[in-house]
Amino acid sequence: MRFRFDVLVSLKEGLLDPQGKAVQQALPVLGWDNVTDVRVGKYIDLVVDADDSGVALDQVRDMADRFLANPVIEEVQIELRKEAPE
Amino acid sequence: MRFRFDVLVSLKEGLLDPQGKAVQQALPVLGWDNVTDVRVGKYIDLVVDADDSGVALDQVRDMADRFLANPVIEEVQIELRKEAPE
Repeated sequence: MRFRFDVLVSLKEGLLDPQGKAVQQALPVLGWDNVTDVRVGKYIDLVVDADDSGVALDQVRDMADRFLANPVIEEVQIELRKEAPE
Repeated sequence: MRFRFDVLVSLKEGLLDPQGKAVQQALPVLGWDNVTDVRVGKYIDLVVDADDSGVALDQVRDMADRFLANPVIEEVQIELRKEAPE
């Protein structure tokens, strides 16, 4: 079965996020002065073919820790989106 | 009140996504040969201060269309995450 995941990778809290800072500083110039805590990360959308969603999720966790993200400086959120159509 | 949003920006379907392709081609080399449809986009996490969630959501949509994403080639998903702590 095919399972679709959203993998969200962002810098750990407390680490400087220059891209987020750049966005945040640009917003007031454009008229939006009520936005804070902007952080920019990566969004990876993928489909895993596996026997069940637990196996698929374990694999995505493994892929995130070893390849998609750097666990020293980044944190990962994984969301099972829906069963992808065959 | 403070509302926290996840903004997910990805290339529209059908458009070439070189970054996603690169990730997808690397996965089998690392032993994961059951992953398809990899697409890489941006993940923007932000907090909006507004009177209610509807107003906040409208603003985030506006920001996404005019600044965070390029609506010609990118599509945006916006999720109200939770009420951010004061």
